[in-house]
Amino acid sequence: MTLARLIEYDEASAEIRAVYDDIMTTRGTDWINTFWQALANHPPTLPRTWECIKEVMAPGTLDPLVKELLYLAVSASNGCAYCIASHAAAAKRAGMTAEMLGELMAVVGMANETNSLANGYRVPVDERFEKLF
Amino acid sequence: MTLARLIEYDEASAEIRAVYDDIMTTRGTDWINTFWQALANHPPTLPRTWECIKEVMAPGTLDPLVKELLYLAVSASNGCAYCIASHAAAAKRAGMTAEMLGELMAVVGMANETNSLANGYRVPVDERFEKLF
Amino acid sequence: MTLARLIEYDEASAEIRAVYDDIMTTRGTDWINTFWQALANHPPTLPRTWECIKEVMAPGTLDPLVKELLYLAVSASNGCAYCIASHAAAAKRAGMTAEMLGELMAVVGMANETNSLANGYRVPVDERFEKLF
Amino acid sequence: MTLARLIEYDEASAEIRAVYDDIMTTRGTDWINTFWQALANHPPTLPRTWECIKEVMAPGTLDPLVKELLYLAVSASNGCAYCIASHAAAAKRAGMTAEMLGELMAVVGMANETNSLANGYRVPVDERFEKLF
Amino acid sequence: MTLARLIEYDEASAEIRAVYDDIMTTRGTDWINTFWQALANHPPTLPRTWECIKEVMAPGTLDPLVKELLYLAVSASNGCAYCIASHAAAAKRAGMTAEMLGELMAVVGMANETNSLANGYRVPVDERFEKLF
Amino acid sequence: MTLARLIEYDEASAEIRAVYDDIMTTRGTDWINTFWQALANHPPTLPRTWECIKEVMAPGTLDPLVKELLYLAVSASNGCAYCIASHAAAAKRAGMTAEMLGELMAVVGMANETNSLANGYRVPVDERFEKLF
Repeated sequence: MTLARLIEYDEASAEIRAVYDDIMTTRGTDWINTFWQALANHPPTLPRTWECIKEVMAPGTLDPLVKELLYLAVSASNGCAYCIASHAAAAKRAGMTAEMLGELMAVVGMANETNSLANGYRVPVDERFEKLF
Repeated sequence: MTLARLIEYDEASAEIRAVYDDIMTTRGTDWINTFWQALANHPPTLPRTWECIKEVMAPGTLDPLVKELLYLAVSASNGCAYCIASHAAAAKRAGMTAEMLGELMAVVGMANETNSLANGYRVPVDERFEKLF
Repeated sequence: MTLARLIEYDEASAEIRAVYDDIMTTRGTDWINTFWQALANHPPTLPRTWECIKEVMAPGTLDPLVKELLYLAVSASNGCAYCIASHAAAAKRAGMTAEMLGELMAVVGMANETNSLANGYRVPVDERFEKLF
Repeated sequence: MTLARLIEYDEASAEIRAVYDDIMTTRGTDWINTFWQALANHPPTLPRTWECIKEVMAPGTLDPLVKELLYLAVSASNGCAYCIASHAAAAKRAGMTAEMLGELMAVVGMANETNSLANGYRVPVDERFEKLF
Repeated sequence: MTLARLIEYDEASAEIRAVYDDIMTTRGTDWINTFWQALANHPPTLPRTWECIKEVMAPGTLDPLVKELLYLAVSASNGCAYCIASHAAAAKRAGMTAEMLGELMAVVGMANETNSLANGYRVPVDERFEKLF
Repeated sequence: MTLARLIEYDEASAEIRAVYDDIMTTRGTDWINTFWQALANHPPTLPRTWECIKEVMAPGTLDPLVKELLYLAVSASNGCAYCIASHAAAAKRAGMTAEMLGELMAVVGMANETNSLANGYRVPVDERFEKLF
């Protein structure tokens, strides 16, 4: 089904195992999800993507829950089934409740509705919005 | 430039004025942005869309800042210039700092990258992610 | 601004002029819009695209107005400013009123909202919907 | 598979049942499709979304068949499998023939092709198209 | 599952068989993939789409492998599972190696990341980029 | 117009200047385009994104021209005006001719057409395509 074989830990090279180990240590889990097993088919892509995710999703001015909610909202909007499933799980681990999920989806739905209305009507951006930043 | 005339307060019908008044009261502003002025061309769409936005963006389990961040993230991901501008302004009023904006955009960028990788490789969803909800 | 020069009738080759002539005759107009002037930079793309548009948009089981409404709805949903402008004009020529435009945009907005909700929640397709065709 | 449990009629609260009843009455059916069963997990989202759909899809200047065709065209263009299945069924009930479906898909395909060409070449909007509305 | 019946060679009309024959001859295969079997439900769409594909994918200034890589990249970016599968197969036949696939996906991922960042920040196009063509 | 100030070399911190210097050295240019000037508002995003782009776009099994064509094709398909302009310029520097651009856009257009047809008809993936990798 996938375009690339899913590379299990046992058959992985030392370099790939090092990334897998770091993923499991960082997340406190004992297994590797299929996304990384697929990326492992292209050795440069696996560590590059993992380092970026690790840096971007680390606690910052936005806390990890908010970051996971943002990731889930974008993935839901894009209709990426894999990322919806994996980041909904991550958001739940970070504290997302069913109520939060419901509110998040309501915002995603409204944003997609009004994005299409604003684009569809070709609404010009208000002068006042241009001067804020 | 827009597909529909922008209807100013002074020329609006009583029904449209009532919606405009509610928008300004709810937001504590004294002007109406062009999005609503365009929607006013179709009288049923204006109040329906406004009531939905008012309900969805009201404080809930997620606070108003988080809701605005989610709205902005989806709009940025969809490339809707109008909604980016208006919801960046709203997020700023709700407390978004420049640092938060930077972190939000970093998440949006990574989500779009990994969404395309997961879809592109046709990565199957892990069994464990299916059982969470 | 465009990636390709806009090729005017006067400077066009005989082959391109023949397509331009057919566009103007078919539409009953005396000018060529910039879309075709851009496509003319790649001689095989101009006639191929025009022949396809001419065939697809010709009267069929769906009348020309409905076809233009469908084209406009997809273009609005995709946020293609050029195609929104040109197909709104074509729809208007085919009989679209301001009221129809308002109803069309309302449908486009709702479709985008519920598309993101159905994808976002990963709603499984009902068995009954699978058996209809 | 879905992010939210599908809530059956028998286990639903009185408020949710009231919405389910209205959906079945309005549509003349005796069952509730999974989309609404998923939305029922977030009590405010179910009635809000249903009321909007009911209002937007009601007969207007555009008849119900044309509205369903527009909904289906946008859903096909967005690749939302659920909405394609459910709105193809609704369009069929409203009178869509196999021939109409074929013409609709042909328009959706051409719109997506020319949307990407107009955006890809960054074709400027013709002056004449700006003055129509 | 599909919206249209898949029309097998044996049950096809003479006109459809002629297209099927041309597809198999051009590709040097002895079977017809489901995409064409679905399009065959709308007789005008099948030959029109096939003629366009045949013309666009023929060797030109870009060789067939590069064309297949471009097709696969766009399909991966759009998340079209069918087109990813069929054009990955076509690209492999044309010489795409696993290493090439990995590099292609890395480019697709980065393009989607920076597309969302450029759109999200509303970055203005540099003057120098406007003067190149 | 942009959500973030464009940070010029002269006002940049030493860390940002180091990235700007590497961009100019790697590309053999003496100026910084606005994309990086916008990203510089979030200090972690600038070097992370640049390092990724540098790695992904470096010569590999695919040569730099093919990589730029892929980047341009995805950006055109996504309708990102900024990335279309900047990567069309980069592709031209890498050897893209006007004829190649025309062929690339033709492929992008067809891919978007058939992606929407395959998704719209919900065409099932052929068994044979599943076994290739």
